[in-house]
Amino acid sequence: MPEQITSRSAAEAADAADPLASIRSRFSLPDAVIYLDGNSLGALPTNVPAALADAVTRQWGTDLVTSWNRNDWWTLPRRVGDRIGALVGAAGGQVVCGDSTSVQLFQALAAAVKLRPERTALLTDGANFPTDQYVADSVGATFGRTVRRVSPADVSFDDEVGVVAFSVVDYRTGELWDVAELTQRAHDAGALIVWDLSHAVGALPVELDSVGADLAVGCSYKYLNGGPGAPAWIYVANRHQAALDLPLTGWHGHADPFSLDSGYRPSAGIEQARIGTPPVLSMLALEAALDVWAGVDLRAVRAKSLALSDLVIGYADAHLPDVEVVTPREHSRRASQVALRIPHAYAVTQALIARGVIGDFRAPDMLRLGCTPLYLSFVQTWDAMEQLRAVLAEGAWRNPAFARGADAVT
Amino acid sequence: MPEQITSRSAAEAADAADPLASIRSRFSLPDAVIYLDGNSLGALPTNVPAALADAVTRQWGTDLVTSWNRNDWWTLPRRVGDRIGALVGAAGGQVVCGDSTSVQLFQALAAAVKLRPERTALLTDGANFPTDQYVADSVGATFGRTVRRVSPADVSFDDEVGVVAFSVVDYRTGELWDVAELTQRAHDAGALIVWDLSHAVGALPVELDSVGADLAVGCSYKYLNGGPGAPAWIYVANRHQAALDLPLTGWHGHADPFSLDSGYRPSAGIEQARIGTPPVLSMLALEAALDVWAGVDLRAVRAKSLALSDLVIGYADAHLPDVEVVTPREHSRRASQVALRIPHAYAVTQALIARGVIGDFRAPDMLRLGCTPLYLSFVQTWDAMEQLRAVLAEGAWRNPAFARGADAVT
Repeated sequence: MPEQITSRSAAEAADAADPLASIRSRFSLPDAVIYLDGNSLGALPTNVPAALADAVTRQWGTDLVTSWNRNDWWTLPRRVGDRIGALVGAAGGQVVCGDSTSVQLFQALAAAVKLRPERTALLTDGANFPTDQYVADSVGATFGRTVRRVSPADVSFDDEVGVVAFSVVDYRTGELWDVAELTQRAHDAGALIVWDLSHAVGALPVELDSVGADLAVGCSYKYLNGGPGAPAWIYVANRHQAALDLPLTGWHGHADPFSLDSGYRPSAGIEQARIGTPPVLSMLALEAALDVWAGVDLRAVRAKSLALSDLVIGYADAHLPDVEVVTPREHSRRASQVALRIPHAYAVTQALIARGVIGDFRAPDMLRLGCTPLYLSFVQTWDAMEQLRAVLAEGAWRNPAFARGADAVT
Repeated sequence: MPEQITSRSAAEAADAADPLASIRSRFSLPDAVIYLDGNSLGALPTNVPAALADAVTRQWGTDLVTSWNRNDWWTLPRRVGDRIGALVGAAGGQVVCGDSTSVQLFQALAAAVKLRPERTALLTDGANFPTDQYVADSVGATFGRTVRRVSPADVSFDDEVGVVAFSVVDYRTGELWDVAELTQRAHDAGALIVWDLSHAVGALPVELDSVGADLAVGCSYKYLNGGPGAPAWIYVANRHQAALDLPLTGWHGHADPFSLDSGYRPSAGIEQARIGTPPVLSMLALEAALDVWAGVDLRAVRAKSLALSDLVIGYADAHLPDVEVVTPREHSRRASQVALRIPHAYAVTQALIARGVIGDFRAPDMLRLGCTPLYLSFVQTWDAMEQLRAVLAEGAWRNPAFARGADAVT
């Protein structure tokens, strides 16, 4: 990977030497756009439209209900789960795909607190993604646990702590936490840890099995490029599967679903984490989207990601005196996005979008720029920073069209 | 609507007089198939492939993350919810679309038992769809309620009963329960009732508001033709929305989601029943599929449905001595499918499918034939029954290829 890139020509040289450069052809992206929001919604893989057209026209339209057998819809959650598992260091049979991250978090946290019945406290991060905090509060209220908010940076354990629910990456700042160390510390204290990998899966190597993770969840529409609202996934380590007691007992998780029994007997393996009928069309889009990972080494992804974010940070330091880099500078503490604190960040974000540079705003004052190595080049990243410099220098953000309306949703 | 149809020529005459005959052109169905499984997976509306291609290629691929605003993805669950609401007698602002029926049932039952905190019993039907029973058991275990199984035919109430969870239609027999009467009786006893409309929505008129329903859920891939695993929906009557306490607290249900607060404050209206990011592609397919209802009167749907099932029942009585009609014969007790108890029903179902007549099997001994008035003709229904007669007369079901394998999933 390149040294710090401090010029457009250096960015061009880095692109010429990029081992992942050819992967960009696996995505369809508008020519006029520099897309720095793959950490919110990943880009469209080129093979997805045809896969989805086949799913709709042939599988649904022609084969109709027989597709559950004929086109293997029934095995889809497990099949996609295993493919996602391979990207997070999970051996087969520990991941299923389905539902939203919110629902999977409720499942995972509820099951986890029941695995530590004598422990009264559930820990989450006060800077965790809102849903993660809300679901922790709901699980706490439902199952009689006290919720404590503490940063992974400051966490301490006592023998009341039964479950820790952290995200691998801080969704605003892009800070990367030490999964191995925190997992070990939780276990040393007799607690279980539930990881949210939404901003990590597909962005950097995570080794759930080797760090001894207990449960994990994640989304599929960011760095996995599964499409808007692509179904999420849940990981349950093999050693926990026998004692698991999941609250969302849909018939797809039953040991013998087509017996149509009156009583629930969970499947013995990870299939117990299936719930109801999954959104097949969305899941088939995700399945096709996972093809972009063929032959891709996550270590190369990680190296390019850090080089891209080094470029962003270095540029901000050198050329943007009014901008504060919030994301940690140490590679070991940085995931795959850069958060910049900027006066009038909302309007600045909109002004950039108007110039074809798509990042996103997070309240109250941050511009997030996602570094997605599969389809983002060094030159694009350089050019995006030049545009940001121009927007700030020209005061382009002052345009009233860029002011935050009451109906803004991103 | 026609008198009892007892010949193919009478079926032809009924088709010629069918006010819904033109609606069939709104669906894409293979010519060689007679589809009697729309009660499991509805047929493909002709406008869905183009709508989904637009969703993928333009909205996701070109507009990328800006589609949350630009293409109104954010308002999709409420928009689709209101359209579904119009089909079940719900005024606007009481239905949102999302997640699976299983998840929505958990939400609804959990919220309902919390609205009756002093009552200790939760009723479900021992013949209810398996998920409905499993989720009732899980909600009972989670919130400390005793689950009683009782048929809607035999239900009685006492002052321990806080919540009743029934389906409008028995998924196996096709029996239709009296929604108005059971709702009234539950209310008279001080209980709330949660209706599952999965086999009713789009099949027959249901008037949730006018019967005073409390909460309801339903699926969208049967008579609503939303596609495999199309997202489900939840109805919460206006009068319950202020006191509602839903356990699945995803950030989309927050009163001000983009404030990204640490604490959950539910939205004041039905938006509180949103959870996480919905499966947008699947939901856009459903939204397009709802266009088939333009100008369709549900009373006409109901009349044709009963005429179709009269044909099936009359044919079985006249020509199939080894077949028992399980579905009630009274119109007021019959929904939109006919269940036939047949020796070797699994193999018979497979033999029919091999001849292009698609129904489905339900353990242990039933063939279900769904009557979907929007795309099924009287002649097709007649021909299907002739095929069933031939399969039984010829013993075609004895073919070993039609025996039930261990891996059968439908």
